[in-house]
Amino acid sequence: MERKEVSKSVLKRLPSYLAYLKTIPEDASPYISATAMANALGMGEVQVRKDLALVSDGGRPKIGYLREGLIEDISQFLGYDNTTDAILVGAGKLGQALLGYSGFEAYGLNILAAFDTNPKADKTVDGKPIIPVERMESFCRTNKVLMGIITVPSEHAQEVCDRMIACGIKAIWNFAPVHLDVPGNILVQNENMATSLAVLSMHLQAQIKEKK
Amino acid sequence: MERKEVSKSVLKRLPSYLAYLKTIPEDASPYISATAMANALGMGEVQVRKDLALVSDGGRPKIGYLREGLIEDISQFLGYDNTTDAILVGAGKLGQALLGYSGFEAYGLNILAAFDTNPKADKTVDGKPIIPVERMESFCRTNKVLMGIITVPSEHAQEVCDRMIACGIKAIWNFAPVHLDVPGNILVQNENMATSLAVLSMHLQAQIKEKK
Repeated sequence: MERKEVSKSVLKRLPSYLAYLKTIPEDASPYISATAMANALGMGEVQVRKDLALVSDGGRPKIGYLREGLIEDISQFLGYDNTTDAILVGAGKLGQALLGYSGFEAYGLNILAAFDTNPKADKTVDGKPIIPVERMESFCRTNKVLMGIITVPSEHAQEVCDRMIACGIKAIWNFAPVHLDVPGNILVQNENMATSLAVLSMHLQAQIKEKK
Repeated sequence: MERKEVSKSVLKRLPSYLAYLKTIPEDASPYISATAMANALGMGEVQVRKDLALVSDGGRPKIGYLREGLIEDISQFLGYDNTTDAILVGAGKLGQALLGYSGFEAYGLNILAAFDTNPKADKTVDGKPIIPVERMESFCRTNKVLMGIITVPSEHAQEVCDRMIACGIKAIWNFAPVHLDVPGNILVQNENMATSLAVLSMHLQAQIKEKK
């Protein structure tokens, strides 16, 4: 199927569809309809139908999609089939946690190495090296790395970001709770856990207030 | 200052302001204007001005805000001053990483313990215990826990979510890439790393295509 441009909001929903499809037991019907998925996920039927039509042409009226085919189409669309090599800068607790997290492989992300200003000699996390940051440029060029993950403290994030771009990196996953300035051809995806915590904490405060 | 209801989009921006304010060197001017912040963060001046007025009444025409006061007002508004106790269910790699991540303390989050179906005896991560999931109910009641973090595989997430709600938990931070069904008074904040990766990977694919 030809690749279409899709909006960020579609991209946000596709992984949920995929996760849901994978939870259906193998002995269930091999077909699934957009309606059934919409009901299971508590989403609008029209939206689910439109989203699925964007990524798969396997849907048949009154029958739906072949489940395995749809899983494959969504995975392929999301790029989970193509492995992306990435580096990570900032081997503190969060950085080391991400470096050692095996769950990313299922989404096609392969973190090759972490860089830090002051790594302990020969330190590795699950076999992945932590390397002095001076060697980042040569490492990225040699390995043709296009994705970088930033897990340094906020005050160093822009500096690391600039350095990544100079290394040829085109997509940045930013875990520092700070805005990064980048040229137009570079994508920054912010993973702002501080925001999530603020939303949760705000909700709890409102609930506690209500009780009083 | 009286607490006002604010939108999620304001809540998303506040941590960036806070992070930026904290990066300003101590020997800089003690005052900061909304204009200066907007420029530094690459955001609209009107928006920054409105956001700050929502959380602080310390702004003065032509002078701006006293920096330290503004930091305090935003922190207080975001609830970073009140520590929230949380439990985490699913002590796999991601769960243990979050359990051991000390950075959350700055945002008022204190993870008391992790629960797992099959924890190794007496296992702790940075002094925090991993406890058999059977003891979750009594633990939550004893410690009056209101926040739960889900780091189990997608297929178990709804079950864990239901159990958390039965334990009195009101706010759920969900790291499983799956939609959770909850009653209206419960807030679910999804941390969907799979989505972030899809967005990044999509950008890289588009860039590679352009080059060809």
